Amino acid sequence: MSLLRDFNQLDFVVLGQRLHGFARELYPICRSITGDGVRQTLAMIQSRIPLQITEVPTGTQVFDWTVPKEWNIRDAYIKASDGKRVVDFKRCNLHVMNYSTPIHGTMSLSELKPRLHSLPEKPDWIPYRTTYYKEDWGFCLSHNEMKGLKEGDYEVCIDATLEDGNLTLGECYFPGRSTEEVLISCHVCHPSLANDNLSGITVASSLAQLLAGRDLRLSYRFLFIPGTIGAITWLALNRTAAERIRHGLVLTCLGDKSGFHYKKSRQGNAEIDRAAMHVLTHQSESPEFLEFSPYGYDERQYCSPGFNLSVGCLSRSVWGTFPEYHTSADDLEFIQPTQLAESLRACTAIVDVLENNRRYLNLKPYCEPQLGKRGLYRSTGGGAIGEELNARLWVLNLSDGQHSLLDIAERSQLPFSMIHDAAELLQQNGLLSQVSEQDGV
Amino acid sequence: MSLLRDFNQLDFVVLGQRLHGFARELYPICRSITGDGVRQTLAMIQSRIPLQITEVPTGTQVFDWTVPKEWNIRDAYIKASDGKRVVDFKRCNLHVMNYSTPIHGTMSLSELKPRLHSLPEKPDWIPYRTTYYKEDWGFCLSHNEMKGLKEGDYEVCIDATLEDGNLTLGECYFPGRSTEEVLISCHVCHPSLANDNLSGITVASSLAQLLAGRDLRLSYRFLFIPGTIGAITWLALNRTAAERIRHGLVLTCLGDKSGFHYKKSRQGNAEIDRAAMHVLTHQSESPEFLEFSPYGYDERQYCSPGFNLSVGCLSRSVWGTFPEYHTSADDLEFIQPTQLAESLRACTAIVDVLENNRRYLNLKPYCEPQLGKRGLYRSTGGGAIGEELNARLWVLNLSDGQHSLLDIAERSQLPFSMIHDAAELLQQNGLLSQVSEQDGV
Amino acid sequence: MSLLRDFNQLDFVVLGQRLHGFARELYPICRSITGDGVRQTLAMIQSRIPLQITEVPTGTQVFDWTVPKEWNIRDAYIKASDGKRVVDFKRCNLHVMNYSTPIHGTMSLSELKPRLHSLPEKPDWIPYRTTYYKEDWGFCLSHNEMKGLKEGDYEVCIDATLEDGNLTLGECYFPGRSTEEVLISCHVCHPSLANDNLSGITVASSLAQLLAGRDLRLSYRFLFIPGTIGAITWLALNRTAAERIRHGLVLTCLGDKSGFHYKKSRQGNAEIDRAAMHVLTHQSESPEFLEFSPYGYDERQYCSPGFNLSVGCLSRSVWGTFPEYHTSADDLEFIQPTQLAESLRACTAIVDVLENNRRYLNLKPYCEPQLGKRGLYRSTGGGAIGEELNARLWVLNLSDGQHSLLDIAERSQLPFSMIHDAAELLQQNGLLSQVSEQDGV
Repeated sequence: MSLLRDFNQLDFVVLGQRLHGFARELYPICRSITGDGVRQTLAMIQSRIPLQITEVPTGTQVFDWTVPKEWNIRDAYIKASDGKRVVDFKRCNLHVMNYSTPIHGTMSLSELKPRLHSLPEKPDWIPYRTTYYKEDWGFCLSHNEMKGLKEGDYEVCIDATLEDGNLTLGECYFPGRSTEEVLISCHVCHPSLANDNLSGITVASSLAQLLAGRDLRLSYRFLFIPGTIGAITWLALNRTAAERIRHGLVLTCLGDKSGFHYKKSRQGNAEIDRAAMHVLTHQSESPEFLEFSPYGYDERQYCSPGFNLSVGCLSRSVWGTFPEYHTSADDLEFIQPTQLAESLRACTAIVDVLENNRRYLNLKPYCEPQLGKRGLYRSTGGGAIGEELNARLWVLNLSDGQHSLLDIAERSQLPFSMIHDAAELLQQNGLLSQVSEQDGV
Repeated sequence: MSLLRDFNQLDFVVLGQRLHGFARELYPICRSITGDGVRQTLAMIQSRIPLQITEVPTGTQVFDWTVPKEWNIRDAYIKASDGKRVVDFKRCNLHVMNYSTPIHGTMSLSELKPRLHSLPEKPDWIPYRTTYYKEDWGFCLSHNEMKGLKEGDYEVCIDATLEDGNLTLGECYFPGRSTEEVLISCHVCHPSLANDNLSGITVASSLAQLLAGRDLRLSYRFLFIPGTIGAITWLALNRTAAERIRHGLVLTCLGDKSGFHYKKSRQGNAEIDRAAMHVLTHQSESPEFLEFSPYGYDERQYCSPGFNLSVGCLSRSVWGTFPEYHTSADDLEFIQPTQLAESLRACTAIVDVLENNRRYLNLKPYCEPQLGKRGLYRSTGGGAIGEELNARLWVLNLSDGQHSLLDIAERSQLPFSMIHDAAELLQQNGLLSQVSEQDGV
Repeated sequence: MSLLRDFNQLDFVVLGQRLHGFARELYPICRSITGDGVRQTLAMIQSRIPLQITEVPTGTQVFDWTVPKEWNIRDAYIKASDGKRVVDFKRCNLHVMNYSTPIHGTMSLSELKPRLHSLPEKPDWIPYRTTYYKEDWGFCLSHNEMKGLKEGDYEVCIDATLEDGNLTLGECYFPGRSTEEVLISCHVCHPSLANDNLSGITVASSLAQLLAGRDLRLSYRFLFIPGTIGAITWLALNRTAAERIRHGLVLTCLGDKSGFHYKKSRQGNAEIDRAAMHVLTHQSESPEFLEFSPYGYDERQYCSPGFNLSVGCLSRSVWGTFPEYHTSADDLEFIQPTQLAESLRACTAIVDVLENNRRYLNLKPYCEPQLGKRGLYRSTGGGAIGEELNARLWVLNLSDGQHSLLDIAERSQLPFSMIHDAAELLQQNGLLSQVSEQDGV
């Protein structure tokens, strides 16, 4: 398997444009944690990869939680006395506080004001607010729009339903030779927010496309789910599958121009943590590695103490630390084709490590084998040696059955791909044999 | 138990004044490793806390040592030929080398000079010198006084006795629900030295007052003892009690204006070390943490290899590193009410950690429990979360029965008190149960 | 045993001159991996220390390698049409590519050029090149000489033989009370290169002279062998001896003016690693410690996974990082008497640690023993204590049977020799007893 080599054959510019194009298609949909927005989104993903869709009825008990009522919205506005819509859901779906209960009536500005959310420090941007677990309603608008509202009566309408229905989950599974699984998870519950939502969806979909039809060592499970309640629901309904997860990544905020951030799993030194940190160290500029904390995305659920899965979170900017976060400024211009494609490359390289991180046994462990007679050494002595030869010496020296290729890559500070190439070459030359792993493949 | 919360109710200014006032009462007494100076000091402590006093006879074998003769002094001086006392014990008890044998006679300045100790680099200060284990005598005086001595004969008198008697130890014990003990130890053998002696005595006494009458988990033992020989004697006579000591602090030099120093126990990562470092990191400016070394105060004895107790040493300035150390400049102005009170607060907070550092079990370990339905979450989503909520998530995430609250405080970098509050709240809400500890309480 | 104390009695200047003098004797010899150059070199070492010489026939299988044909050279030159030798082996033996096959004929400059090696960036220096495992021939010359060659025909002669013969190994063994061994290894296969070859030979020879005739705890084995093939051959023929090696040092590049570099063994924290780093930290200016890598000198073979011996490499400059490396500028002026003698002192101090690194048991482990009554303490109290007393307290505190003297030296940050002196003194005073080691001595 040479996933990374194949990836590097692709046209990087075309790839970036394709990722951004998919985000553009998904952008207008008003997603929430339940409802038709999620269904439409999953249908568009399903047109690219084999997605299994599960509907979980309202009221289903999932651990300490209950699947909520389904929310759907058709229209919403605030209309001034002259009949003009001063706030209009059809212009931007962030205008409605997500999960608002239906309302239709007339009220004065002072009655309305407590229901209006704006960002004084960013007066042109509309904030994103939700009220999932408390029945309530409200509007979000730019601070300039808010200040422009004149005294008087307004017609207020949220044409939404909050009724028994379903929570919708999307899942794509590629079986490998081993039943041990890699989990790739992203959330699909934010309305028109590009970095925080669509970047994860597009990168995860494309990674799944790259894996489709391949001979894989590990099995791969992609989840496209509403944040928090979606992860909790999936875990509650799939405890056996969850036990097979060996490595996992939550993907989010992968389209902006920041350097990469990798947040470690609760375990802190799991193979996924080491693989991600190794890849980012060799493949990106000044990546930052964050310790686990119990707040963030769905790694909160995967890393809860009952599961304690080896799941980290890969992003560029970190939620809450960039001004565009949870505002209308997290739009299609905030994410860029090049950044999305680089993020996909990082994910591909991490998967490549997981697939190929095996242990080998040096079959000539006493002193160095004579590489020269096999054409694996330089012929004239006295000068320096290259990195490829150095990689061969490292693999031979540490292939005592204890060190994995990732161990060797870390200790030698050479890229995993170079160490992996060296191991393949040495194996072809009869100098290494693969140690059989626990899972037998 | 909410020792720290109760402490924070106290009037900080009044507390500082009370601590300093007690030091002022103790200051004039001429203490030594034996004798009436120690007895007077212990009697004054006994008027505040229930102190048990033990007299150990001269000649008692204590490990490799022997309890020395008892030293008592009434007067001492050097009188010039004009009858004027040029050096007078009654003006300052540092003038006599502590434990000097009695002498009365006349001698020339040149005969006298080898017996005189001064500090050329601090010409106004009187040094503090001792001769505990070698029978000898001498005087200490300022360098300016020394230089002023004219040639001629001097009457020299040390009206002291060095005879069979007793070594005196003070001990205050508060039994808790567990027989596991916390040791608080300070030395009471220095004459008029304020930071190096009285600051430890006053802070330890006040800490004992705070603990008196409380329902305590651990048992507490306060030792007010002469340095070195006192600790050795106590350990030799109380080997069973010593085996019950789980955590300990030597208190000294707690009144000056330096930032805190904590010297770790020989073990280096004992719970007391972690508790002290955690508290000082959160509660004081740029504390410094020192590795254990076998020189210093009575941690030398508690951390000898036969005992190897988890005993650290808390101070502000470190002995030997400040110019006033072991001189007459270590006086009542060198220690300040605010500093004494802050030191007491640090001790209180450390004890609070030891009392409350339990392990808990998350009763809903699969995914996060739904805090919102219990009123433990914010209701509108999309913005940041506060530290209290963050503390709850940390406690839930790490309460797998393996992590103590101190582990959680360290990993989350939140103050222990906030983590402890979160645990109490979650327990009240049925989300946590306490893990029973080895000692059953 | 007080090897280091004895060393410090020697006249340092005379020692340096003797080391450099020996290097001067060895310099002109044209060494290679086989042949009379090695034999002459070993004979000169044998005149100083008891060296056992082993001849291993061409064709002998040694692990994955075969002992090569023996190479001997008598003369070599390139003669211009005017009969003048423009390149002459007799002026400098680096002029011939080492291990060149014999050739005698006439060829044009353009035919000859691909056979000529020079260093454009150092136009006055002759490079050192070899062709051990590929039958080939060539000449090395300064870039200025190369540029001065005029078009025309040249007589080219390499009067060498490459025939069945032997590989020659030199070995010097000092048995100690224990059969556990210390290996000191250096290469003897480079022609006129001073730092990279002769510095290791002279320092190793002198270290052997210092050990000769001593009562030693450990056994010592010195190897003077051709690089790579020599180490592989010795290991293949001496597998039982190799199993007894507990600590080892490869010595090389010890005469230049750089600070020390110590490259750790593959194990990374072996006793030899700790001993070398401790000694260099206390005894030299800004030493640098390098992680193991599988390229370099014969530690490559000793640290191959089948052996994984605790062998590090001590040098000043590191191969490949100084411009003189593998050129004619690595000559007798590049190495200096003072540097050679300091290197010998470092080796001696490291051996001193290995010889004396024992564990002791404090016989008075409860509290401190009273050092004063044994004359091991200062008598007047109140001031500072010296390092010797501090060392005694450290040794007493950590001598619980678990800590070796090196552990204590590391933790106290005091030099091993001071810790060792303290242990001897305390043992003489009945306060310590030696813990018997695994090897019984």
